Amino acid sequence: MSILPPALTDVIEALGTLPGVGPRTAERYAYYLVRNDSTKAQKLASALQDMHAGVGYCKKTYALVPAGQELSDLYTDPRRDKTLVAVVAEPFDIVALEKTASFNGTYHVLGGLVSPIDGVGPESLRIAELIQRIDDDGVQEIILATNASVEGESTALYIQKQIGDRPVQVTRLARGLPIGVDLEYADQITLTRALEGRQTL
Amino acid sequence: MSILPPALTDVIEALGTLPGVGPRTAERYAYYLVRNDSTKAQKLASALQDMHAGVGYCKKTYALVPAGQELSDLYTDPRRDKTLVAVVAEPFDIVALEKTASFNGTYHVLGGLVSPIDGVGPESLRIAELIQRIDDDGVQEIILATNASVEGESTALYIQKQIGDRPVQVTRLARGLPIGVDLEYADQITLTRALEGRQTL
Repeated sequence: MSILPPALTDVIEALGTLPGVGPRTAERYAYYLVRNDSTKAQKLASALQDMHAGVGYCKKTYALVPAGQELSDLYTDPRRDKTLVAVVAEPFDIVALEKTASFNGTYHVLGGLVSPIDGVGPESLRIAELIQRIDDDGVQEIILATNASVEGESTALYIQKQIGDRPVQVTRLARGLPIGVDLEYADQITLTRALEGRQTL
Repeated sequence: MSILPPALTDVIEALGTLPGVGPRTAERYAYYLVRNDSTKAQKLASALQDMHAGVGYCKKTYALVPAGQELSDLYTDPRRDKTLVAVVAEPFDIVALEKTASFNGTYHVLGGLVSPIDGVGPESLRIAELIQRIDDDGVQEIILATNASVEGESTALYIQKQIGDRPVQVTRLARGLPIGVDLEYADQITLTRALEGRQTL
């Protein structure tokens, strides 16, 4: 005997596959949608249905672009510096960096980070394509903007090795105290990095 | 200039209307779906599309039932005691109570709780239908299984008044210490209720 109608459990099950969504949260989402009139559910359904067909990858930077578009607007924009490339793991990292309005270069999306545990080797990332861009675009600086995690660090190291002795400056994002955090609450590694990277006032 | 393709921002926007889902969470869900092959997104889309058409309400208990089905399985099951009715606010409360496997009666879904702040008056709840059931089914006990909140309490009080002098026992769920919680961490009201409801060993 089922307590809930199958049309509803189907939705709960499908929502439950989203990252971080457990059965209770999925139930809450589904019930919110079912108690509202069907407009919300239909709108979400049709947006989901059209998503994959409407999304493509930039052939140069591998950022997400509208389907059919060859190159990302951020790459073709003549005001962006093509000789400065920020290397990020995922397309949404671009959104985070763009929000700072402090970066005038272009991006390169790796499509992940080296993670032996998850079976992600460097060959599955777009590193060869990055090396190619160094030559094609005359890149002068590569900012390794990967996460400050083990995976982020080892991916950065691997890329640095691949770049070899090409005449390009390789930098990475500063490590240190996040703004608004008390020194006493910072972990040891962060504090060590903040000491190492101390700057003259 | 848009950083993300519209097909993706449409999904982010639609997901962002779910309860408790902010822009960051919506982005995470959408990116998870877009980086996977389209099967997951299509499955969720079609489940959402079919949901409203596949869900109806039980004509007696107002529990959610497959569309076209008159009465809830929990109501028509001959092993369930129709003279014992648990009154709940929302259909999902039935799922929570059924999980206990400690209730052998039937349910009645009010469709909300009295909440003047949200503009929900008692007339928009299925209270008249509950009173009707008392007479129709010869109900002997009504368990007011509403939330232990101000809205839950006032809804219970209102229902009790409406029942009037009908020959039916009205009970409500016990208030007291939740299992596994230390006495020193319980709030004053809970502790007061636990004292008032103390039971002989």
